[in-house]
Amino acid sequence: MRRIVFVLVAVVALASAVAHMAPASGQADGETAPIFGVKIPARYRDWRLISVAHEEGNLNDLRAILGNDVAIKASREGNRPFPDGTIIARLAWSYVRLEESEKAFGHLQSFVAGPPKNGVQFMVKDSRKYGATGGWGFAQFDDGKPADEAVQKTCFSCHETVKARDFVFNRYAP
Amino acid sequence: MRRIVFVLVAVVALASAVAHMAPASGQADGETAPIFGVKIPARYRDWRLISVAHEEGNLNDLRAILGNDVAIKASREGNRPFPDGTIIARLAWSYVRLEESEKAFGHLQSFVAGPPKNGVQFMVKDSRKYGATGGWGFAQFDDGKPADEAVQKTCFSCHETVKARDFVFNRYAP
Repeated sequence: MRRIVFVLVAVVALASAVAHMAPASGQADGETAPIFGVKIPARYRDWRLISVAHEEGNLNDLRAILGNDVAIKASREGNRPFPDGTIIARLAWSYVRLEESEKAFGHLQSFVAGPPKNGVQFMVKDSRKYGATGGWGFAQFDDGKPADEAVQKTCFSCHETVKARDFVFNRYAP
Repeated sequence: MRRIVFVLVAVVALASAVAHMAPASGQADGETAPIFGVKIPARYRDWRLISVAHEEGNLNDLRAILGNDVAIKASREGNRPFPDGTIIARLAWSYVRLEESEKAFGHLQSFVAGPPKNGVQFMVKDSRKYGATGGWGFAQFDDGKPADEAVQKTCFSCHETVKARDFVFNRYAP
């Protein structure tokens, strides 16, 4: 009996550890974005890093591309097209001069992520559901709310530029 | 008996899941860097994102700051000084123009992470062991090998600039 209790305690501890640490993949929450019906995936901020980027011009941001487990596996193994279940998240922040680093170096040196900017975007792979757009559903959320339909419509036309790479601009940064 | 077997199977499955998904924190592997005796933490590339940055000038890179579980928790909760066990990783890649995005936008637009550059750096918090340097041990690895002692010596003097923020330049990007 004592052994069973021990084993049960271990199960509960492990289940709790998994619940705490596991990157969410399919779960979603909140409002549904128009056109592709995508919701913000639960705990996407805990996903692992695919790559980073800086956008110039009007966008003027620093960004990170995160992926759920399916996305990370496919990115690392170079599998294309991405399998169904892939979700890629694009986060972006203001492009801000870091004054402390300018002091340390004695000249303009570092730009870092400031407050969030340009919304959070998701690409969701479902080859059956989104067959008309290369198997991808797209969504942008601003401050946690879906952007309007006009904004959502701009996603696919831009990503078509990289059709040869399964419509994904980013490449995995090792 | 059948119940015990079931529970044991569940334990093994969960233990395997934890081993697969848990970000490594304390484990380390490979050669030890001079001065602070830091090794490359196991599976640091799976750690969660703290922030991103772009360095100008000679560094000319895009970088990501990742943290182990202790670092992420402290970063999100704003706890300073960082607790013992914190490890922060700084990865960097070449600053590369993304031609496909220039085509899509019709002008210079995106810079993305190219091949790795400027080594991988770690800050390890151990207030007792590294008491003489604000509780932090520093290390840089180039292509997986510790950089020489002259390079390692430059870390602390630069990070002293941000002593008021526990010697850490980056701020958590929400």
